[in-house]
Amino acid sequence: MSYNLLKGKRGIVFGALNDMSIAWKVAERVVEEGAVITLSNTPLAVRMGTTDELAKKLNAKLIPADATNVQDLERVFTESMEALGGKVDFVLHSIGMSPNVRKKRTYDDLDYNMLNTTLDVSAISFHKMLQVAKKLDAIAEGGSVLALTYMAAQRTMVGYNDMADAKAMLESIARSFGYIYGREKGVRVNTISQSPTMTTAGSGVKGIDSLFDFAERMSPLGNASAADCADYCVMMFSDLTRKVTMQNLYHDGGFSSMGMSYRAMQQYIKGIDEFRDEEGNIIYG
Amino acid sequence: MSYNLLKGKRGIVFGALNDMSIAWKVAERVVEEGAVITLSNTPLAVRMGTTDELAKKLNAKLIPADATNVQDLERVFTESMEALGGKVDFVLHSIGMSPNVRKKRTYDDLDYNMLNTTLDVSAISFHKMLQVAKKLDAIAEGGSVLALTYMAAQRTMVGYNDMADAKAMLESIARSFGYIYGREKGVRVNTISQSPTMTTAGSGVKGIDSLFDFAERMSPLGNASAADCADYCVMMFSDLTRKVTMQNLYHDGGFSSMGMSYRAMQQYIKGIDEFRDEEGNIIYG
Amino acid sequence: MSYNLLKGKRGIVFGALNDMSIAWKVAERVVEEGAVITLSNTPLAVRMGTTDELAKKLNAKLIPADATNVQDLERVFTESMEALGGKVDFVLHSIGMSPNVRKKRTYDDLDYNMLNTTLDVSAISFHKMLQVAKKLDAIAEGGSVLALTYMAAQRTMVGYNDMADAKAMLESIARSFGYIYGREKGVRVNTISQSPTMTTAGSGVKGIDSLFDFAERMSPLGNASAADCADYCVMMFSDLTRKVTMQNLYHDGGFSSMGMSYRAMQQYIKGIDEFRDEEGNIIYG
Amino acid sequence: MSYNLLKGKRGIVFGALNDMSIAWKVAERVVEEGAVITLSNTPLAVRMGTTDELAKKLNAKLIPADATNVQDLERVFTESMEALGGKVDFVLHSIGMSPNVRKKRTYDDLDYNMLNTTLDVSAISFHKMLQVAKKLDAIAEGGSVLALTYMAAQRTMVGYNDMADAKAMLESIARSFGYIYGREKGVRVNTISQSPTMTTAGSGVKGIDSLFDFAERMSPLGNASAADCADYCVMMFSDLTRKVTMQNLYHDGGFSSMGMSYRAMQQYIKGIDEFRDEEGNIIYG
Repeated sequence: MSYNLLKGKRGIVFGALNDMSIAWKVAERVVEEGAVITLSNTPLAVRMGTTDELAKKLNAKLIPADATNVQDLERVFTESMEALGGKVDFVLHSIGMSPNVRKKRTYDDLDYNMLNTTLDVSAISFHKMLQVAKKLDAIAEGGSVLALTYMAAQRTMVGYNDMADAKAMLESIARSFGYIYGREKGVRVNTISQSPTMTTAGSGVKGIDSLFDFAERMSPLGNASAADCADYCVMMFSDLTRKVTMQNLYHDGGFSSMGMSYRAMQQYIKGIDEFRDEEGNIIYG
Repeated sequence: MSYNLLKGKRGIVFGALNDMSIAWKVAERVVEEGAVITLSNTPLAVRMGTTDELAKKLNAKLIPADATNVQDLERVFTESMEALGGKVDFVLHSIGMSPNVRKKRTYDDLDYNMLNTTLDVSAISFHKMLQVAKKLDAIAEGGSVLALTYMAAQRTMVGYNDMADAKAMLESIARSFGYIYGREKGVRVNTISQSPTMTTAGSGVKGIDSLFDFAERMSPLGNASAADCADYCVMMFSDLTRKVTMQNLYHDGGFSSMGMSYRAMQQYIKGIDEFRDEEGNIIYG
Repeated sequence: MSYNLLKGKRGIVFGALNDMSIAWKVAERVVEEGAVITLSNTPLAVRMGTTDELAKKLNAKLIPADATNVQDLERVFTESMEALGGKVDFVLHSIGMSPNVRKKRTYDDLDYNMLNTTLDVSAISFHKMLQVAKKLDAIAEGGSVLALTYMAAQRTMVGYNDMADAKAMLESIARSFGYIYGREKGVRVNTISQSPTMTTAGSGVKGIDSLFDFAERMSPLGNASAADCADYCVMMFSDLTRKVTMQNLYHDGGFSSMGMSYRAMQQYIKGIDEFRDEEGNIIYG
Repeated sequence: MSYNLLKGKRGIVFGALNDMSIAWKVAERVVEEGAVITLSNTPLAVRMGTTDELAKKLNAKLIPADATNVQDLERVFTESMEALGGKVDFVLHSIGMSPNVRKKRTYDDLDYNMLNTTLDVSAISFHKMLQVAKKLDAIAEGGSVLALTYMAAQRTMVGYNDMADAKAMLESIARSFGYIYGREKGVRVNTISQSPTMTTAGSGVKGIDSLFDFAERMSPLGNASAADCADYCVMMFSDLTRKVTMQNLYHDGGFSSMGMSYRAMQQYIKGIDEFRDEEGNIIYG
């Protein structure tokens, strides 16, 4: 179903790896809503994933680029404007990676070169994207920029490791640059804090299935899916949200405002039943 | 311009007084987007304002009702379902009033009967609305309920008085009821925290013009208008935001994430220039 | 152990019922730290509990009073100043009660008269206390006022019911009045958001033992006890925190900044193990 | 005045440059409260500042070290344990610097090598400190670690530049490491978000005097001074706050909970008076 919410709009979607990716769903939905787009991902991801299939399907130019490299980003914006016939109206940043997580370094045993990579890929790339775009004047007045983030930026999640710090920085960049880009060009910059999602990246997080189950039972509306997220991105790219900026928007079925739900507690109690005495009191050991 | 985002949807809009009201703009926009609605306001407001004109224009049934009265609310929901031909899909609560503010009682000299009225009208009415709707099963699965609020719930604003406490409670009700209504019926409940707006109600707040100017200069995108707010409400009522619930959504041009802007500071400095010595240093005290 | 942190200070402690009460521990600790105090509780609580024993032990005047009654509060402050020989330096508000919880009314079936009582007892009493104190000029320059609250004000907890809304309002009152009392008299007003605590009141909350267990395992330092809370209150009443005001201070072993801990997840997983298939994948039913 | 709150405790204070430094005041106060400490700062700062005078006065060993260098930090902790006769009980991180700010690069024209330095000095150094301490088991059970931060981490302040992102990351590190250090060793990790303070570092921020004035008038208790901050640090290092962790604690006279104060607005209005027409209405635009 399409509302033509993005008719005539041009966009760039960073980070679509395969059809489990949130960015993949976003690319599909924004085109469905009338936008023309380009796609970008790292050369390695382009080889490993199936982004080129998506590009064909959506009739979108695929521009391989390292988002930590300023020259590459300049190329993405320049080629996108050429391919799309004008300044872009929206950008999605869906990029994140931690070598410390991949190499199973715990948070109290970080490798600091790896931490630099985590930050460079997952957070600073967003600043570079915005700075490059602004210097090239590549985003149209009233444009909308989104980055995907996760609640670990506010509340510590076991296993999320240095990605939590990267996401906190990412959200700060959205505010800091949102002020300047808003003031000078009317461009909005926001982050969407999404439910745990079973993407290829998400699946790599230790204990993601348990966390997914917990979040599902805690959230009154259940976890938001990648497809749901694509809908929300459409909304944030549309002209109906032109005064929303510098916000971190929770898109999580209500999880962020929950302390404890009935369903999660019922499940939790099953785990502690063995610690009850004959009167049903919990025995704290 | 219409996207047909609310085609086939039924709604109730509470609180449209006159064409300066946010609720008025919302009513116009949701109809433009394809919804059918009813309007409700207090009998007094209906007499004082021009809600009946709006009702005629939008071909909407106008149901006078006191939102603090459970029976009245039952009538609104029942008559709305009849008039609209089914359960409602969305509800807007745009209701607030403080007798303490009106009577110029300061916050350290509150009249407690008046405080009860402030809370009953501005916050508890929202709970009553939700409880009545749920008991009557009047909101369709996946429905969306919004209440308008203001950032004074988080940060004290001189002159906002006991309305700040009412708004804090209103936002808490959205979370508390959002959990239950989401869990059981998939109904979303959110609040929109809007820029200071020059409505009839807003104009009554002491010093609103100065505050409006300050917020305008602090916000990178400027203050959000009533018309902007109507756009945002359309989005939150649409199917594109079905996983967003229990949130307080700032719709304020970025104000909530600003500590100090260049423009506001330039203006502020003008005020303190007379306190500078010949070297340009500020003289404190 | 005493540091004489409150030597020469005068205080009023509201809400000590019995030796499980947080207010009881606070009363003991502040006296240990050199303060002289009066105690107040409702006439009913005085009869039901053992506040008089505490009063004897601490050589403190016990002033029965209904904290929802302005005249009673005037009497408490006046008699306290007489008994203690001067203006008071600190006040603890540890008062809360919900008839809806007691009568097992669910949040979507509230009795609105009961809700009024919940608000009056648990939130508005704090405003009355502050307004009465300010009108009587009963709190010394630089004084410190605390109210106890709970994280349900920010994140919905199943079973906490209308107390969540009351706590949200309580915290708002602390900000709203904190602005005025700070500006005019240098008096600080803060709330302490405490871990679930096994007080007589806490024990009444449905499912408190499971919640207590969950919070214990989520919090890196474990739940904060009533005795821990008393230590924190001493600090907030002392002269070392004279610039802290309008804050909601989490005192919870870190719970408020946790999304998921290893220990809580291990316990949770036990509950979901039966939902795993032979490959160990969770089966979502 | 001393309460002996830190009697028998050992600490390390990083970042005392001269007698305007917050860390300087903290060092003086913790010694006054009975602690023995070591001091550390960069070799350059040691040469430029007067830290050695402080070391003599407090009878504290001064250990020059680059806090971005893991080996240096290992030396600081090892030598501190030797000098102080055991594990340390508390650590203060008061370190921050942005070459982009110094070189007047605007936030939309960052030099990315400089950004790396900003992050390394102002945020990652805190992680290194904690990781080194934990690996050396250098902090005693129940110890307390503090880092100083600023509200620009939450709300954008013109001119604060990439330090805002660094502070956001710093606060995230406090949460992420606080979880692990708390869980395993009972060590608390918190940040104190201080009023704008006229230190040597603070004075370098563009427009600090105007911001200082604005904050002073917004905060009901006025800005917190470096000496006030030292008192608050004493409290957070003491045994009375053993259950507080992973928190960002505003120490700002109430500023963080203010939206607009009477005093600040009066000053602001002076600046806009020239934009009023003869009826006193503000003329926009």
